[in-house]
Amino acid sequence: MATEVERLRSQLSSTVTITTKATPSKTHHHTPIPSSSFPQGFVLTGLHCGVKKSPNALDLAVVLSTTEKPAAAAGCFTRNAFKAAPVLVCQEILEGTGGGDVGRARAVVVNSGCANAVTGKQGLEDAWAMVRATDALLPTSSFGSEGFEGKPETLVMSTGVIGVNLPIAKILAGIESQNHTPSTLGADFESWERAARAFMTTDTFPKLRARTFTVGGNEYKMAGMSKGAGMIHPDMGPTTPAKTLHATLLSVILTDAPIAPRALQSALTYATDRSFNSISVDGDMSTNDTIIVLANGAAGGAEIEEGHAGYEVFRDELTGFAAELAQLVVRDGEGATKFVTVSVHEAPSYADAHAIASKISTSALVKTALYGEDANWGRILAATGAVPLPSSSTLDPARVSVSFLPADRSAPLPVLVNGEPQKVDEARAKEILQEEEFEVEVKLGMGAESAQYWTCDFSYEYVKINGDYRS
Amino acid sequence: MATEVERLRSQLSSTVTITTKATPSKTHHHTPIPSSSFPQGFVLTGLHCGVKKSPNALDLAVVLSTTEKPAAAAGCFTRNAFKAAPVLVCQEILEGTGGGDVGRARAVVVNSGCANAVTGKQGLEDAWAMVRATDALLPTSSFGSEGFEGKPETLVMSTGVIGVNLPIAKILAGIESQNHTPSTLGADFESWERAARAFMTTDTFPKLRARTFTVGGNEYKMAGMSKGAGMIHPDMGPTTPAKTLHATLLSVILTDAPIAPRALQSALTYATDRSFNSISVDGDMSTNDTIIVLANGAAGGAEIEEGHAGYEVFRDELTGFAAELAQLVVRDGEGATKFVTVSVHEAPSYADAHAIASKISTSALVKTALYGEDANWGRILAATGAVPLPSSSTLDPARVSVSFLPADRSAPLPVLVNGEPQKVDEARAKEILQEEEFEVEVKLGMGAESAQYWTCDFSYEYVKINGDYRS
Repeated sequence: MATEVERLRSQLSSTVTITTKATPSKTHHHTPIPSSSFPQGFVLTGLHCGVKKSPNALDLAVVLSTTEKPAAAAGCFTRNAFKAAPVLVCQEILEGTGGGDVGRARAVVVNSGCANAVTGKQGLEDAWAMVRATDALLPTSSFGSEGFEGKPETLVMSTGVIGVNLPIAKILAGIESQNHTPSTLGADFESWERAARAFMTTDTFPKLRARTFTVGGNEYKMAGMSKGAGMIHPDMGPTTPAKTLHATLLSVILTDAPIAPRALQSALTYATDRSFNSISVDGDMSTNDTIIVLANGAAGGAEIEEGHAGYEVFRDELTGFAAELAQLVVRDGEGATKFVTVSVHEAPSYADAHAIASKISTSALVKTALYGEDANWGRILAATGAVPLPSSSTLDPARVSVSFLPADRSAPLPVLVNGEPQKVDEARAKEILQEEEFEVEVKLGMGAESAQYWTCDFSYEYVKINGDYRS
Repeated sequence: MATEVERLRSQLSSTVTITTKATPSKTHHHTPIPSSSFPQGFVLTGLHCGVKKSPNALDLAVVLSTTEKPAAAAGCFTRNAFKAAPVLVCQEILEGTGGGDVGRARAVVVNSGCANAVTGKQGLEDAWAMVRATDALLPTSSFGSEGFEGKPETLVMSTGVIGVNLPIAKILAGIESQNHTPSTLGADFESWERAARAFMTTDTFPKLRARTFTVGGNEYKMAGMSKGAGMIHPDMGPTTPAKTLHATLLSVILTDAPIAPRALQSALTYATDRSFNSISVDGDMSTNDTIIVLANGAAGGAEIEEGHAGYEVFRDELTGFAAELAQLVVRDGEGATKFVTVSVHEAPSYADAHAIASKISTSALVKTALYGEDANWGRILAATGAVPLPSSSTLDPARVSVSFLPADRSAPLPVLVNGEPQKVDEARAKEILQEEEFEVEVKLGMGAESAQYWTCDFSYEYVKINGDYRS
């Protein structure tokens, strides 16, 4: 018994014991969706083809539009100089330089477990092989052999370890398995969910949402999934030094609305700035980040074009929906215990507001203070002032106000008003900051533009997950 | 006994126990310097005036040039939009709009414990009061009552909590105490060290260095101190919510070389880019960052002007010296267990190399991998590609190489060569990355320019220090 006491005492003294908050469970963010809520004319599946070692881990998603005419397709891709092979292949296809038609596609294929990044010529060949294998699953085009046949109609995404070639034979076998009857492709909730799960790496829940909207009296549906937050591939470790961890944000959004390819790309670019480009887990940009939208027009109606009345309605629906999917990534942020909205108001331009919101959202000092539940306006102010403004305007400290807003929309807590530090009600600060969700609001007093960002805190768990300290 | 076992077991299970590396002691970076190594014509002191609560904590430094003619003076200041009062006052003095002569000063006064930031009109008045009180310590100018008398000749710095007014009476009394005989002002090592200690907040050692150099056959000396890494003021806590933590980098460099004010400013701007602007602890920019150089010409010789042969010699000495002081700040980084040099070579321009080195050095994913002693070239590559290059050049992944270089200059460890992942010798990787100091080298294969950055790792201790989690 004395030995046991000694052992336990020694265990306590030889380690630094940090009392940390438990990372809250986030699985309640995944809920069933009625199958009738999904857009018409799409079938999906998620399966295990063997990229991931665990036999139950889904690692391949296939998404097909069942329409004969190729859907309008648009994409937003990482601006990283080192774009992974699937990113380069998608760009070629959408730009029409890959042999297909500009802004047209009918399928998306996604593998998790291997990013196909920094894989040279072989990587490009593998990505193209995934495209061709998925093209073969598509129903014959109404354009027949003179039409789309032979043209690439599949967009491709990969996420996982970097610097390793895809196990391409396994992936191709997985895709080809859907050519046999019965395939697992389906349009019900279970099929959508399996596809969403096949996107996941260390995500703790599948990120799947659907919404219904109306343009010009016609009802349309939009559904999609996103993936992100997980940067550690579970088979990483000391024995596989050449494989390195890799963070990627992926999203596929599908709609049965009819829209012209160019209008779809404009709407997606606008939406991406206000959704996926407005989130931060750790401020690092991946080589694989990809957002794809397919609009197959299966629900009928007149084609939406830029400049038409319906365009802004569609764009704003897409923006709101993309923001929902983007926020799920932040909620699932590695080690995150807080989901924090950063709003910047009264800015001279949207770009100014966005730049400041981005700086606050990525500041290590702000993020550790959020973890510490500390109403630290000094750090928020220092981050606000650290950004060179795109509009070249000059901030005036005497006009800046900072408040913390509770998620329940009860009374806000002003901490700085027109440059004047406020006497902070400590009990109220504790009440707001101990919640898992709240908002940091910064008013610049210089204009009418606003931007929002979504971020999470920096915790011990974040260091643990990404430090991977080999003790 | 059973109860003790239960108690210990419960203590182990109710906390998340993380085995962390001990933060290495850094006090060996402070060593005595022979008094003969310091530049002529300067006296200094550090004392306790009462800004800090602890009666032994030095919190006020005074630096005077004993020359009758004001020294050439130059400064580099935070680019934060919310500049603290002492920053604004220094800029006015150096620019000649504060009533003094452009680029001239004879003294520096520094307090730690309170940043005098976000303190409005009172803050400016307090900073000016510190200037005037220190001016009164200066020997009468040779220019007499028609000369510099009445003109401000003191530059001022503050570091500590933000949003709180200075205890100005205590500070003024501290400065005025040096008017009485005997003052504690001196030119020996102990006086320099006391001044360096008075800069400290949570720094674990005073950062003081000296060097000797030659321009045009004349020998000159340069000495100085820096301060940084500490962002938490020890009297912070739940009971003082209006006071918030504050990170600041301060440095004073003194030399007895004769140099024209404009040449001194050019040299300092160049040196700051390659020293203080090339370090990162957490990527956050303070409202108070200030570097001041005084060159009093006390060692004689011809005045160094831009374009003269001696100018580049002086500039390079200043750059090397500033880099030494800047590196000490990184070595003392909060929670840091590693001191890592990031070198970017073969860039099209210095600005490109600097931008990439900065991005790698501030990436949370790179910094957690450094803590984890993980040769994670994928994260380094992703950070390298994430920067829009100032020269608008386009990186070519196939030309990029990444190596880890050990501090002892033994064989480097290439992990990526011309875009090709290398088979990494894991034992060798461990050998290099377990050291406290090593270098990450990135070659772009695109030009002849280089830049260096110095950074540290992100540890549990960093989160603890800055999260200040109120459990």
